[in-house]
Amino acid sequence: MTATSAAPKPYLTAANQTVSAANGIDYAYREVGDGTPPLVLLQHFRGNLDNWDPALIDALASARRVVTFDSVGVGGSSGTTPSTVTQMARDAIAFLEAMKLDQVDLLGFSIGSFVAQELVLIRPSLVRRLVLASAAPQGAAGMHGWAPEVIAGVGKPTFNPEGYLGVFFAPSPASRDAGRQLLGRLAERTDDRDAPTTWQTRQAQYEAVCAWGIPNHALLQRVSAINVPVFVANGDSDPMILPHYSYLLAGLIPQARVKIYPDSAHGFLFQYNAEFAADVEEFLSDPC
Amino acid sequence: MTATSAAPKPYLTAANQTVSAANGIDYAYREVGDGTPPLVLLQHFRGNLDNWDPALIDALASARRVVTFDSVGVGGSSGTTPSTVTQMARDAIAFLEAMKLDQVDLLGFSIGSFVAQELVLIRPSLVRRLVLASAAPQGAAGMHGWAPEVIAGVGKPTFNPEGYLGVFFAPSPASRDAGRQLLGRLAERTDDRDAPTTWQTRQAQYEAVCAWGIPNHALLQRVSAINVPVFVANGDSDPMILPHYSYLLAGLIPQARVKIYPDSAHGFLFQYNAEFAADVEEFLSDPC
Repeated sequence: MTATSAAPKPYLTAANQTVSAANGIDYAYREVGDGTPPLVLLQHFRGNLDNWDPALIDALASARRVVTFDSVGVGGSSGTTPSTVTQMARDAIAFLEAMKLDQVDLLGFSIGSFVAQELVLIRPSLVRRLVLASAAPQGAAGMHGWAPEVIAGVGKPTFNPEGYLGVFFAPSPASRDAGRQLLGRLAERTDDRDAPTTWQTRQAQYEAVCAWGIPNHALLQRVSAINVPVFVANGDSDPMILPHYSYLLAGLIPQARVKIYPDSAHGFLFQYNAEFAADVEEFLSDPC
Repeated sequence: MTATSAAPKPYLTAANQTVSAANGIDYAYREVGDGTPPLVLLQHFRGNLDNWDPALIDALASARRVVTFDSVGVGGSSGTTPSTVTQMARDAIAFLEAMKLDQVDLLGFSIGSFVAQELVLIRPSLVRRLVLASAAPQGAAGMHGWAPEVIAGVGKPTFNPEGYLGVFFAPSPASRDAGRQLLGRLAERTDDRDAPTTWQTRQAQYEAVCAWGIPNHALLQRVSAINVPVFVANGDSDPMILPHYSYLLAGLIPQARVKIYPDSAHGFLFQYNAEFAADVEEFLSDPC
């Protein structure tokens, strides 16, 4: 290897694979890296396998096995996307069982963080440690349906790059520049891309998001039953799920640590892919 | 002034003053600095006017008027210390009224942070901005009565310097050294010291602390009604009121910011007196 050779990009060339689960669904997934337990990722609103930043996945996979998958009805997976977070968690459990994974580390991002919370409450033994990125607990006041400009930015029938940048990146030139670099990385894979997500997925996921955000103080207590170590992280300017809710999670979950990344928004984990991957690695490998 | 002259220490020489309130209590207080609104401080468990770090008070007072006082039955104030946080808040309001203060910034420390929360809920118009140091909301799980080693360290009939250091400072040599320096500063005033706090105050305040810590998830919702900007701060190793509860407050209060200071404990605001005073000043003068 010479000094000018490019770093390897395993996620860019990771094959689309399929596993058939007991619920009758054929799940699309990709995996890179090695190690036990694997780190399984739960994707954001309307995202498929191609919406994970390859730079983040490769950084995470330098130290461990990383698995991305499409849940039911999403991208290349069969079936119809359900409209509740609880059913999404059951569907994720069916995928893990099909993969013969008895225990995993989970990283849930945005709606994926809702699914991750629900999964660890439904089947605690499956989860060793939990990373919640751009997350909020069910029932928190003030987040129902997201702000109008947020759902307008990412909820339209066709992908709107400016709308995506406005939600996933902060208004500063530095953050927007990081956003445009991300769009380049997301477009880099040209062969064997995942199937796009459908309007049915958009509608079902948004219904689940709205239900999750119906304010109900009593439901906040649910996450106090999460008895694994949790790392809560967010961008300081996330307009979709405010960092306020990261503090709330960290204050409700008994074993939580929290980090808020400066000058970033919903996609802080892509903007700070190397730093966030290092923070996740430190958390997952910490003897606690 | 020559380069070798010592910095002025206004709080060390501030006179003990008395004001008579409508509730029949003669309140002991001190004040330094100038400006409107004043910053009024609410003291920790068993603390009197001499238990405020003069370095912190002088740093705060460099930019504004700072008022410290003994609440009912504490130190040089008359009366019997009540055993509920709510009554302590009413007693603090009586002091502010006696001082003819229509609006203040409040800094509550430890049990004083409980009183500050209650005060702003009872009489919102009195408070412009709120600083909660080493704080927790009423009803939070896991803090009832403090850990046995904590109440053993600071709950004995006579002052135990090692017990105080073990609660107010982290175990590291740097933090303990800061603690010994603080004990020196607290002892520096020899004339006109405040009256010591009594066993009656200790018992009543501890009863109030225990009642505050009875777990009740529903009560957590109360602080979501605090509609002023709030700065929540704690030491990362506070054994008395865990930083976990600072995140909980920051997640429940709509307009909150939070900072956790490294390698410090319950007395982080004394250990980091210059940095904390600067952070408070930035918060209080921020246009928000």
